[in-house]
Amino acid sequence: MTCPDELTISFITGLSVIRRPFGLTLKEISTPMDVLTFSPEPEQYAWTFGGAAPVHRIKPGTVLRLWSDDAFAGRLRDVTDLPSSALDARYLNPQTGPFHVEGAEPGDTLVLHFVEMTPARSWGASATVPFFGGLTSTDRTATLQDALPERTWIYQVDSGRGTVTFEAQGGELTLELPLAPMLGTVGVAPALGEVRTSLVPDKFGGNMDTPEMRAGSTCYLGVNVTGALFSLGDGHYRQGEGESCGTAVEGAMNTTLIVDLVKGGAPTWPRIENDDYLMVVGSSRPLEDAWRAGQVDAVLWLQELVGLDKLDAYQLLSQISEVPIANVVDTNYSVVTKLAKNLLPPTQVHDGIHRHLRDQATSISAG
Amino acid sequence: MTCPDELTISFITGLSVIRRPFGLTLKEISTPMDVLTFSPEPEQYAWTFGGAAPVHRIKPGTVLRLWSDDAFAGRLRDVTDLPSSALDARYLNPQTGPFHVEGAEPGDTLVLHFVEMTPARSWGASATVPFFGGLTSTDRTATLQDALPERTWIYQVDSGRGTVTFEAQGGELTLELPLAPMLGTVGVAPALGEVRTSLVPDKFGGNMDTPEMRAGSTCYLGVNVTGALFSLGDGHYRQGEGESCGTAVEGAMNTTLIVDLVKGGAPTWPRIENDDYLMVVGSSRPLEDAWRAGQVDAVLWLQELVGLDKLDAYQLLSQISEVPIANVVDTNYSVVTKLAKNLLPPTQVHDGIHRHLRDQATSISAG
Amino acid sequence: MTCPDELTISFITGLSVIRRPFGLTLKEISTPMDVLTFSPEPEQYAWTFGGAAPVHRIKPGTVLRLWSDDAFAGRLRDVTDLPSSALDARYLNPQTGPFHVEGAEPGDTLVLHFVEMTPARSWGASATVPFFGGLTSTDRTATLQDALPERTWIYQVDSGRGTVTFEAQGGELTLELPLAPMLGTVGVAPALGEVRTSLVPDKFGGNMDTPEMRAGSTCYLGVNVTGALFSLGDGHYRQGEGESCGTAVEGAMNTTLIVDLVKGGAPTWPRIENDDYLMVVGSSRPLEDAWRAGQVDAVLWLQELVGLDKLDAYQLLSQISEVPIANVVDTNYSVVTKLAKNLLPPTQVHDGIHRHLRDQATSISAG
Amino acid sequence: MTCPDELTISFITGLSVIRRPFGLTLKEISTPMDVLTFSPEPEQYAWTFGGAAPVHRIKPGTVLRLWSDDAFAGRLRDVTDLPSSALDARYLNPQTGPFHVEGAEPGDTLVLHFVEMTPARSWGASATVPFFGGLTSTDRTATLQDALPERTWIYQVDSGRGTVTFEAQGGELTLELPLAPMLGTVGVAPALGEVRTSLVPDKFGGNMDTPEMRAGSTCYLGVNVTGALFSLGDGHYRQGEGESCGTAVEGAMNTTLIVDLVKGGAPTWPRIENDDYLMVVGSSRPLEDAWRAGQVDAVLWLQELVGLDKLDAYQLLSQISEVPIANVVDTNYSVVTKLAKNLLPPTQVHDGIHRHLRDQATSISAG
Repeated sequence: MTCPDELTISFITGLSVIRRPFGLTLKEISTPMDVLTFSPEPEQYAWTFGGAAPVHRIKPGTVLRLWSDDAFAGRLRDVTDLPSSALDARYLNPQTGPFHVEGAEPGDTLVLHFVEMTPARSWGASATVPFFGGLTSTDRTATLQDALPERTWIYQVDSGRGTVTFEAQGGELTLELPLAPMLGTVGVAPALGEVRTSLVPDKFGGNMDTPEMRAGSTCYLGVNVTGALFSLGDGHYRQGEGESCGTAVEGAMNTTLIVDLVKGGAPTWPRIENDDYLMVVGSSRPLEDAWRAGQVDAVLWLQELVGLDKLDAYQLLSQISEVPIANVVDTNYSVVTKLAKNLLPPTQVHDGIHRHLRDQATSISAG
Repeated sequence: MTCPDELTISFITGLSVIRRPFGLTLKEISTPMDVLTFSPEPEQYAWTFGGAAPVHRIKPGTVLRLWSDDAFAGRLRDVTDLPSSALDARYLNPQTGPFHVEGAEPGDTLVLHFVEMTPARSWGASATVPFFGGLTSTDRTATLQDALPERTWIYQVDSGRGTVTFEAQGGELTLELPLAPMLGTVGVAPALGEVRTSLVPDKFGGNMDTPEMRAGSTCYLGVNVTGALFSLGDGHYRQGEGESCGTAVEGAMNTTLIVDLVKGGAPTWPRIENDDYLMVVGSSRPLEDAWRAGQVDAVLWLQELVGLDKLDAYQLLSQISEVPIANVVDTNYSVVTKLAKNLLPPTQVHDGIHRHLRDQATSISAG
Repeated sequence: MTCPDELTISFITGLSVIRRPFGLTLKEISTPMDVLTFSPEPEQYAWTFGGAAPVHRIKPGTVLRLWSDDAFAGRLRDVTDLPSSALDARYLNPQTGPFHVEGAEPGDTLVLHFVEMTPARSWGASATVPFFGGLTSTDRTATLQDALPERTWIYQVDSGRGTVTFEAQGGELTLELPLAPMLGTVGVAPALGEVRTSLVPDKFGGNMDTPEMRAGSTCYLGVNVTGALFSLGDGHYRQGEGESCGTAVEGAMNTTLIVDLVKGGAPTWPRIENDDYLMVVGSSRPLEDAWRAGQVDAVLWLQELVGLDKLDAYQLLSQISEVPIANVVDTNYSVVTKLAKNLLPPTQVHDGIHRHLRDQATSISAG
Repeated sequence: MTCPDELTISFITGLSVIRRPFGLTLKEISTPMDVLTFSPEPEQYAWTFGGAAPVHRIKPGTVLRLWSDDAFAGRLRDVTDLPSSALDARYLNPQTGPFHVEGAEPGDTLVLHFVEMTPARSWGASATVPFFGGLTSTDRTATLQDALPERTWIYQVDSGRGTVTFEAQGGELTLELPLAPMLGTVGVAPALGEVRTSLVPDKFGGNMDTPEMRAGSTCYLGVNVTGALFSLGDGHYRQGEGESCGTAVEGAMNTTLIVDLVKGGAPTWPRIENDDYLMVVGSSRPLEDAWRAGQVDAVLWLQELVGLDKLDAYQLLSQISEVPIANVVDTNYSVVTKLAKNLLPPTQVHDGIHRHLRDQATSISAG
C-alpha cells in the first residue's frame, strides 16, 4: 500500500459558508472552495490531541480530502498478526492532522461536515487485545484472572455489494455484514494545555467511537486553542454500539469533509447534527456520568433552540431522547443523546449551517 | 375511572403452543385458547415481585386481557397534583398480578408475548419528583444541593391521531408526540426468597423501563419459584431511552398477552424477541455493569444459536450489537443489547416460539 | 459441634436504660436486666432480612447472648471442601434471629450495643468462590474470562495468643494474624415490604462487612416494621477493609449485646458509635455512591449534633472524616465515614446512650 | 509573602544511597550530599505533568528544599475571596518543578523520601467551588440542580500548638484541629507523550490527595520519560480522607525530600512506604476501579515480596489490607491499599531503601 503525501490545492464551485461574526444571511452564490488533499506519511502521523505541530493551515470553508490509517497503524494484516507481538502501545490510533484553522480562537465552534467516507483498503481488521475491551478485565477494572486469548479477524471489503465479511476463526461461519463507514476519532487540542493520547474521548472529542460520526453528519467542537488543531482517524468499516471487544472493523479511510467555523458558541461536549437528529456525545466514567454529561448538555441545547425553561426541557428530553451507547472500552466511555428533529418545532442550529453544508456537499460529490 | 374486576374466561380459536417438554412439532391446528380478562381493584394491586398471593392460576397458552394502573396509582391527574403531596412512597408502581402459571418450576422459561397495548385513559402524567430521576442528585448519588422543583405534566391522548401532547408549563409550547405504548415493568418472583419492590429491575425482570417491551415483543424470563408468579404494570404511553426525569408519560394500560412456558432453558437475564431483533436486558449499577451483564449473556446466546466459539461470538457481537439505554433512574440501571436477526444466519429461539405466538396474536386480534 | 437451642432467661444486675419516650434522666440505679441466650438449630436459621418469623420477642433493655453460624453455614471445614461442591447458593450467610423488639415502630431507632464477640469455634474458613469477590469478574461486572480457581483456607484460632493463623496453600508460609472479631451482618427488616437476602447491605443494615461492627460499638438502625425484626450473623475472626476476595476469616460467633430502643430519630443509613468515633455506613453501587450516601448523612448528623449550617458542616467533614472502605464484594458496596469525637465539641448522641450502654456492658461482663 | 528564588547548593554529611544498578551493599559511610533549595517565582510555576521544561537537573541522592504555593495559587486570602471571582481555571494547583533526575529512564523507579513538610504561611484556605467537590453535582456527575453556594474558610496556623483553626462562617463555632501537613500532588511526566493538568491523579502520580504523602514516607513512581521530570505541590495543612468538598486546608509548603533512583522495577501505580506500611495508590473512575487497580498491584507486590502464589497473596491481602479512600473529587478518584509491615514476614523493598533514606533524613534534620 502506498500512502504518498499528495498535497493538492484546487478550486471547485460551492456555496458560501454562513458565519455569524460577519452577519451573513444565507445566499446561494457560487464561490470557489479551497480543496486540500492530504495523506500523511507514517512519520507524519499524530498520536495525540494537542502537542503535535499542524500539518497544514486552512481557511474556514476548505474541503479536505484525507487519508487516515487504521487504529493498528496497519500492523494487523493477517489473522496470524497478533496484537501482543505486532502492536506497539506507543503507536496506536494514528491521526491525520492536526489542521490549524485560521481564525479559530478559544470559545469558537469548529464545524466539520463529513461529505464522504470510503474504505481505503480492501480489508479491515479487528482483534481481541489482552486486558483491553469491554468484556474483559483491564488495567483499571483490574482482576486477577488470566487475559482472554488474543485473536485477529480480517474482514474482506466488497465495495460493490457494500459489505464486509466476518469469518469465524474457531468455526466455519462466514457472514456478510453491511459496510457502514464511520470515524472513531475526531477531535481538537484539549483545554488547560493538556496533551491527550488519541485513545481518549473527552470534551475535546477524540476517540468517541460513535457510528454517528459518518458521512452526512456535521460535528460541532468547542475550540480550546488558537487554530483549533483538529485531527481525525480511526476509520471503522462498521462497528456495533459499545465497540464491545475494543476494536471495530478497523480500516484505513478516505474522508471528504468541509471545515467551517462559527465564532463563539463553543459547546461543552461534542455535538453532531444530521438531517434527522441533534446529538450530544458525553464521555466519562462511570458510564452513567457519560450519559449525565451529554443529557444535561442536551437539555441546555433544547432550552436554547426551542425556548423552554429548564424543567420543561428536561421533561421533553425524557420523553423523546434516543440514547445509544457509543463505547464502553476507551479511557472514557461515551454515550450519545439523540433528539429527533421531527419531534421538535422547526429550529436552526447556527443559522442552519448543517443544511447549508449538506447542500455544498452535494455539489462537491457531484463535482 | 372504573376498574371493575371483570373476570371473564372464554374460549377463542388459536394456534397450539409449542412446548419443548412435550416434543411437539409446529402444527397449525386450531385449538381453543383460554382467555382471562382481569382488572384489579386498588386493594388487589401488587407492590412487589414476590411476596404477593397470586390473583389467578392460569395454564400456559392462556390469553390475558389485563388492565393496569399507572405508576402513580392514578394520583397525578392534574398539573396541580404534585408528587410530594399527592404520592405515597409505599404505594408506587402498582402491578397487575401476580399470576401463577401452572407447571412453571425454577429453571423454566416463562414466555410472554405481547399482542396489544392500548391506553386505558385519555391522558397520561409525568412529573419531576424530588431527589428522584437521572439529572438530579438522589438518595444514593447524594449531594448537598437543593432538590429540583416539582412539576407535573398532563399529556392528552389522541388515539385517532396516535399522539400524546406535551404542554410546556413554564412557557407556551405544545408538541404532539407519537403514541408509543409500552410496559415499564414486567417480572416474576425473584430467587433466594427475595421480595423486591416493583420499582426495581433485576434478573427477575421488573422495572426495566425499556421501550422494547411493546406489542409484538416476546419476553423470556427465568422462573425462580413454582408458578413463576409474574405480574406487569407501569404502562408508558411513550418514553425516551433512559427515562431521564424518572417518569415517562405514565398511563393506565390495557394489555393483551399470551402466556406460555418452555420447560428449562431459564435465561440469566430477561430476553426479548421481536420480528427483527434478539435482545437481552441487563440491570445493575454502575451503568457499565448493566451493559456488561447483558452483553455477556448475548455472547452466550449467540454461541448457542449460531454455533460460534466464545471469541468469535464476542467479535461478531462487537460489530453488530445495537445498545440503547433503557433506564438510568431506577434502583438498578438497565441497558438493552440488540442483535438484528437479518445480520445473523437463520436461527430459531425455542423452536420459533416467537413466530408461532405472533401468528396466534394475529388470530386473537382478528378474533 | 453442637448448636443446642439453649434458651435461658435470667436476671442480672445492670444499669437502667435511658429511653427518651419515658423522659428518664440518667440514673445509676441497679435494676434487673433480662438476659436471653439463644443458639438456633439449623432449621431456625434466617436467610433473609424481612420475611422470616421472629424467633423471640424481647423488651428494650434485654441482654442477648447469641450464637451464630458462619457465612458458609459451617460447610467449609477443610481445605478440601471447595465452594462449588460444598456450598448451596440458597443457603449462605445464615442469620440468628429475627428478634421482635417490643414497642419498636417504623421511624424509631433500634440500638444494639455489642458487649462481646468471641469465636465459637477453634477454626475459621475463607475461600475464593467462582465469579464472586472483588478482584474477579462477577455476574454483574461480567466478563468472558474464566473464573479464578477455587481454594479454601482454614485458619486455626489460638484464643490464648489472640491469633488466627494463615497457611499458604500454594507454598509454605504460615503467618499469625491478630484475632479481631466482628460481625459482617447486622440488620432489620427492610422498608416497602421488601425481603432481602442476608447477602445484601443497604439502608436496613445487612451485610455491610465493616470491622467497626465489633465489641464496644453501638449500632443505630432505623426501624421499618413493627418490632424491627433484627437479626445478626456472618462472624469474622478478622477481615481486611474491602473484604477483597469476598470472604473474611469466617467463623461461628458468640455475641453478647444489649438491645435498646429510641423512639423516633430513625437514621437514613446505619450509624455506629464507639468511644472514639461517630460513624455512618453507606451502601450502594458504584462505590462513590456508597461514599456519597454516608457522607451526606454524616453532614446532616454533624449539623444536628454540633449546630452547624450545611456548608460549615460540609467543610468540617472535609477536613476530619476518616473513610475506610468496608466491602467491595457484596450486592451493594459499603463505605464507612468516621468522625473522631476528640476533634468535635463535646456532644451527646441520644442523650449519651452509647456511654450508658458501655457502662452497663462492664457490669454484664463482670457479672 | 516572599517567594524568592533562592537557589543554594551546599553539601551536608549524609549516608550514601544504595542503588541496585551499582550493586552496592549498605554501608554507613559519610558522604557529602547535594542540597538544592528552590522556591519558584509565579512565572516558574508548572501547571501540568509533562509539557513543562525542567527547572533544574539533579543527581540521585540530592536533597531538595522546596517551597510550593497552595492549590489556589495564593488567590484565596480572606473569607471574602470567593472562587468564582478570585480563581482562574487555567491556573490552579501550581507545581514546583519539574526536576530532571539524571540517569532516570523509562522503566526505572523514582524514589522520593519526604523528610519534612512545614507550613510556609501562617494561614491555610479552603472553599466550596461551584460544581466541584464530592457532595455536589459536577461537570460529569452532571445534574440540573443549582450549584451549592460558594464559601471560603481561612484557617489560622499555630505552629507552636501544632494546630489549624476551623471557624464556622454560618455560626460561632471555632475548633482547633491538629496540623497534619501532606502534599496532595506528587508526580512524574506521564507515558504516551501525554501532558496532564496537575489536577489529575493517575499512574504517573499527580493529584492523589492522600494524607499518606507526608514526612516520613517514601514514594515510588514509575519513570516514563528520560529524567523522570517530577514535580510536587498542593500542600495541605490537613485533609480528611476523600477530601469531600474538593479542597483541603490548602497552604504553601516547605518540603524537604531526598531524591533517589532505582534502575528498573517501575511500579504500575504509585507506591508509598513508611515505617509501618507498604501502600499502593490506585486512581480511576468509578471508585471501585481505583480500588481494584491498587489492590491488584498490591497482590502482585505481596507475591514478589513474600513469595506467595497469586491466590495465597489474594487471600492474605483480603484479611489484612487497610483501605482508606484518598479522594472522590478529582478527575480520577484515588484509593490507598495499605499492608501493615508487622503482619508480614520481614521483607525488604529495593534492598531497604526506605530505611536507609529514613536514616539519612535523620542526619539531614539534625544537620
